[in-house]
Amino acid sequence: MKAQVLHKYDDELTAPSWLSLEDVPDPVISKASDVIVRIGGAGVCRTDLHVIEGVWRPHMDPNGDALLPLILGHENAGWVEEIGPEVEGLKVGDPVIVHPKISNGTCLACRRGQDMHGEGTFPGLDADGGYAEALVTSARNIVALPKTLSPKDVAPYSDAGLTAYRAAKKATRHLMPGEYCVVIGAGGLGHIAIQVLRAMCAAEIIVVDTSGASLQLAQECGADHLIRADGGEVDAVLSLTKGHGAEAVLDFVGEKGTTAKGIAMTRNAGSYYVVGYGEDVQVPTVDLVITEKNIIGNLVGTWAELTELMELAHRGLVNLETQEFKLADANDALRALHHGEIKGRAVLVP
Amino acid sequence: MKAQVLHKYDDELTAPSWLSLEDVPDPVISKASDVIVRIGGAGVCRTDLHVIEGVWRPHMDPNGDALLPLILGHENAGWVEEIGPEVEGLKVGDPVIVHPKISNGTCLACRRGQDMHGEGTFPGLDADGGYAEALVTSARNIVALPKTLSPKDVAPYSDAGLTAYRAAKKATRHLMPGEYCVVIGAGGLGHIAIQVLRAMCAAEIIVVDTSGASLQLAQECGADHLIRADGGEVDAVLSLTKGHGAEAVLDFVGEKGTTAKGIAMTRNAGSYYVVGYGEDVQVPTVDLVITEKNIIGNLVGTWAELTELMELAHRGLVNLETQEFKLADANDALRALHHGEIKGRAVLVP
Amino acid sequence: MKAQVLHKYDDELTAPSWLSLEDVPDPVISKASDVIVRIGGAGVCRTDLHVIEGVWRPHMDPNGDALLPLILGHENAGWVEEIGPEVEGLKVGDPVIVHPKISNGTCLACRRGQDMHGEGTFPGLDADGGYAEALVTSARNIVALPKTLSPKDVAPYSDAGLTAYRAAKKATRHLMPGEYCVVIGAGGLGHIAIQVLRAMCAAEIIVVDTSGASLQLAQECGADHLIRADGGEVDAVLSLTKGHGAEAVLDFVGEKGTTAKGIAMTRNAGSYYVVGYGEDVQVPTVDLVITEKNIIGNLVGTWAELTELMELAHRGLVNLETQEFKLADANDALRALHHGEIKGRAVLVP
Amino acid sequence: MKAQVLHKYDDELTAPSWLSLEDVPDPVISKASDVIVRIGGAGVCRTDLHVIEGVWRPHMDPNGDALLPLILGHENAGWVEEIGPEVEGLKVGDPVIVHPKISNGTCLACRRGQDMHGEGTFPGLDADGGYAEALVTSARNIVALPKTLSPKDVAPYSDAGLTAYRAAKKATRHLMPGEYCVVIGAGGLGHIAIQVLRAMCAAEIIVVDTSGASLQLAQECGADHLIRADGGEVDAVLSLTKGHGAEAVLDFVGEKGTTAKGIAMTRNAGSYYVVGYGEDVQVPTVDLVITEKNIIGNLVGTWAELTELMELAHRGLVNLETQEFKLADANDALRALHHGEIKGRAVLVP
Repeated sequence: MKAQVLHKYDDELTAPSWLSLEDVPDPVISKASDVIVRIGGAGVCRTDLHVIEGVWRPHMDPNGDALLPLILGHENAGWVEEIGPEVEGLKVGDPVIVHPKISNGTCLACRRGQDMHGEGTFPGLDADGGYAEALVTSARNIVALPKTLSPKDVAPYSDAGLTAYRAAKKATRHLMPGEYCVVIGAGGLGHIAIQVLRAMCAAEIIVVDTSGASLQLAQECGADHLIRADGGEVDAVLSLTKGHGAEAVLDFVGEKGTTAKGIAMTRNAGSYYVVGYGEDVQVPTVDLVITEKNIIGNLVGTWAELTELMELAHRGLVNLETQEFKLADANDALRALHHGEIKGRAVLVP
Repeated sequence: MKAQVLHKYDDELTAPSWLSLEDVPDPVISKASDVIVRIGGAGVCRTDLHVIEGVWRPHMDPNGDALLPLILGHENAGWVEEIGPEVEGLKVGDPVIVHPKISNGTCLACRRGQDMHGEGTFPGLDADGGYAEALVTSARNIVALPKTLSPKDVAPYSDAGLTAYRAAKKATRHLMPGEYCVVIGAGGLGHIAIQVLRAMCAAEIIVVDTSGASLQLAQECGADHLIRADGGEVDAVLSLTKGHGAEAVLDFVGEKGTTAKGIAMTRNAGSYYVVGYGEDVQVPTVDLVITEKNIIGNLVGTWAELTELMELAHRGLVNLETQEFKLADANDALRALHHGEIKGRAVLVP
Repeated sequence: MKAQVLHKYDDELTAPSWLSLEDVPDPVISKASDVIVRIGGAGVCRTDLHVIEGVWRPHMDPNGDALLPLILGHENAGWVEEIGPEVEGLKVGDPVIVHPKISNGTCLACRRGQDMHGEGTFPGLDADGGYAEALVTSARNIVALPKTLSPKDVAPYSDAGLTAYRAAKKATRHLMPGEYCVVIGAGGLGHIAIQVLRAMCAAEIIVVDTSGASLQLAQECGADHLIRADGGEVDAVLSLTKGHGAEAVLDFVGEKGTTAKGIAMTRNAGSYYVVGYGEDVQVPTVDLVITEKNIIGNLVGTWAELTELMELAHRGLVNLETQEFKLADANDALRALHHGEIKGRAVLVP
Repeated sequence: MKAQVLHKYDDELTAPSWLSLEDVPDPVISKASDVIVRIGGAGVCRTDLHVIEGVWRPHMDPNGDALLPLILGHENAGWVEEIGPEVEGLKVGDPVIVHPKISNGTCLACRRGQDMHGEGTFPGLDADGGYAEALVTSARNIVALPKTLSPKDVAPYSDAGLTAYRAAKKATRHLMPGEYCVVIGAGGLGHIAIQVLRAMCAAEIIVVDTSGASLQLAQECGADHLIRADGGEVDAVLSLTKGHGAEAVLDFVGEKGTTAKGIAMTRNAGSYYVVGYGEDVQVPTVDLVITEKNIIGNLVGTWAELTELMELAHRGLVNLETQEFKLADANDALRALHHGEIKGRAVLVP
């Protein structure tokens, strides 16, 4: 089959192109519960750029590029093409979305439903992913799609959407009417989080972004207050919240100073959720003690949460803006993303 | 009445003595719900040294020493001496412990039971405290003591003990059998936390401390594993926890590198609790994302939690080691604390 | 002042009128935290009929009608007319809604925020209520109204609305996208619950009622599925929920067989919420064991929850249908309610 | 292999013997994740008597005894004898305990960790169980035993112990110091629950039983207060709890009037946990509304909870009293259980 393959890291992201389109062997069923998915859509994510840059090398590839060559692509959806002999409840041709983590299903984390904390692989990061015509995964990773949803339209939900969903859902568990939630960054993840918040709680949603277009999108997604990040955004949030700050702050940027600002926007006893990444969080312990604020890490979501998110999408409560590229044009999509030219999420299609 | 009064901050804690014993006006009832407590014991706390140093000036006294002169003492217990006309359920002579925050009882935080996040004052920090013969407070702040407990023996529970209790209780809400809790620092707060963990969950308790005497105390309090902090403590915790780290880490030190180590000792999806303070927490956002760890601030506890802690003390499930000093010898007690010569907690008695 | 007074219970509700309009002494401030509220609206509730019938006698008036004469009215809103000397944050003329329970604020239940489980009185049930020109209450019971809300329009929220809110909010804490919530009875409480569910979770809402008009109202409030209760309602719910039942069932009727049906509509591991009352819940223990279902009692809500509900009302997320009667016509309102002629909630106005 | 087989239900439990010892085909591996366990111990449970009586026929065998002949035995432990080709982390000879529900691992309930609410079979109830020399199950059901625990000593934990654990654990999630937990019935399940409560919370434990021997066992297990059930047990509990009742009541009897008494012993806003079964729960809806009490169903536990319980057993925090019978003497064990002659739990051994 055809696939887009990474052969070499590029620390500065300066190479003219990063992936090469090649013929590679078709994936095969090797375990009773394996499933091969014909790719209908593969989301293009900033994490792909980070993989190319080598940000993940210390975690995923510590031993001299042993991981390369690698097919990228961790946001996959498509149709069942072949199933292992013990797969139940799925048949060839079913439209599906693929949870990004192939977990074993038997460790304690898996058995508590925390798939992403079990042992296993992340195809597209530490095993071949979905920038290809097909992908082998496990029945455990498959969520069947309702007829209302098409693979190419939902692929980015499998990682970006799921990450936004989980972080926003955590916040909705404690946000009460009369409270506030700040969303920093209304891009690919943030605009989904706003819709999730809108659907699952009655807090007032304040969106902070540097871009007018993003704020416009935020408003369409249901934001109650829009703040242009021009240096005065902390004061603006404090002013909106009667000087107290917001009970929850979801930071989808995590760099260029948003962490200090995000914590400053958080109300005492409230929670600051780290989703975007780049810089360090740095905060005096005495401040955490006096304010009793919490700093909450967030990592994708569970399989069950992916079904919840698909339900929101099916019912039209969450919508995703996508921009399509052919699989053959993967480098174009990555470049566009790198240069901030993608609105919503880019998706590779066959 | 006699009281120990602070007239001047001392940044370096080098003055021969910090407080002066003086005659000051007796406290008076001014509100219907006021209560005057004759002091039976006033805990001497590292926070008193921090007040003297001026650490709290930016928060409590930003306008040119307007707060001074100030009677210190925020860990108070004694007997009811006089009650306002609308106080119910208390009578003169009742032994009591005093919650450290005088909250108004009507704001939303108070009405949700989060006394320490309501508006109000902290006597001993921003109003006159209990290094004196008597103290005026509100009926809202009073917890009646059972006959098994004497004021001078329990005074430090009102702040130090309550802080340790709340942080440890938070951890017990998610710690399951088969999981681990690390306690960094088995001093005045830490040795209470160990006992609270022992009473309220079945996690294995690992205690990390630089001092052999503290580790000995930790063992008596119920620790399962003792680790001498000699530079290899992170590896030692990882080794005990099969390489994963502990589901909860309670840091009662918060300086000299314990924050980075504490976070490193925390298992993915687990929580690092900040209680001690001094240095900054600094952690890459990408690490919080990959590991989904949480950093949890902690600030004293609620009035209800003080009743819970008194119940543990009453039943002998938590014991406190104290060392008594006369009120007149407050400077000696503070100096001894400053020089690390107090075992458990120092208490001023009449 | 004028007030509507109950002098005699009427077991069968057959008397031509139940209350008499009388001149009674004006309420007076007796405690430092007392507040006198001039009544702008007093909700007329089925519980008033139950009080008249004597349903509450065993609980509230066990000793030979000692409670009578009694001014009814437990759903009150109006304007501050006079405040005790220690009341802060309120001034004469402020529009307010009154929480139905005068709790002491010092017992453990109060201090944990569970006002309705503290000691205290329920004006209108065991002390004089708001079917009058004015009412004395405590500052603890007052929630200030935003300018968008007028006392006569919100009075029924203080008890009926608050009860519906609390029960629905409990359900929203566990209802996930893809799950179902059944509301049995879309009357005065039920139609508020539907709106609360809509605002605070993304579960699909199924409403069951015997009345077409109520189902129509349910649809306007945001119900996803309407089921006419004609004997086949359990099957209809099971059919909608793929045979499993709903994760939450809120029963606002509690009589005429709804309890058995409601439990049958509940999914295994789900919760059946009792709000309406009349008949007994009867269920084999073996069924509770095999299904692990929960039966959840519900009693009005906390003061904090009343502020949350007012926030929903202020933002237009919850709307209440009311029908006004003059205070002098209280008996007409009660009769209309008794005969099922009130749409939404009746409110007495000056 | 040898197995004890049920051929005929016996409504009155009057037959001289119920099971027949027979040669049956050895179990075989048919799926990649199957595991065959050589039985080291099979717990004898009151549910076995209920199966023989036909109590479970409506649920498990509604179509004319289609389920018979059936090998009973749902509390199984032993050693791995053979594994399917894709089983990882287990090897022949490993000592193991078997979770009672063979769930598919792919439905939403399973993926949320709620194994017992997924689709699947309960060997010993609706498929052949462990009253035999060996049993086939899934790798999903296996919990490896630490060396401190031997299969015959822990077998009853897999169902009876796990049920007691889950119910008690639910209570520990809300029981605070100063609160009370009543355990009704200190038999096979109850005596485990007492130890779990002791290990995981600091509530005071009140045990109610008709038998002096059981109360003696309760005391050894850590009960704080013992009440002989002689008709005055509700008053005795109310007296111990200052008239309020207990925040949690765990009922391991569920018949002979314990349900009404258990609910009466429950404090307002507290929870009554149904574990034992026999009679109906019957309670006026108005009582549930006035008191806001909860009635909580309980069904065995999750796989993760079985690992938690094994951890408590491994550390000596929970101990189980057992009485051994040979597999060939299964009818004797059942008869002894039927006649109340078993102390703790009976276990069949090879």
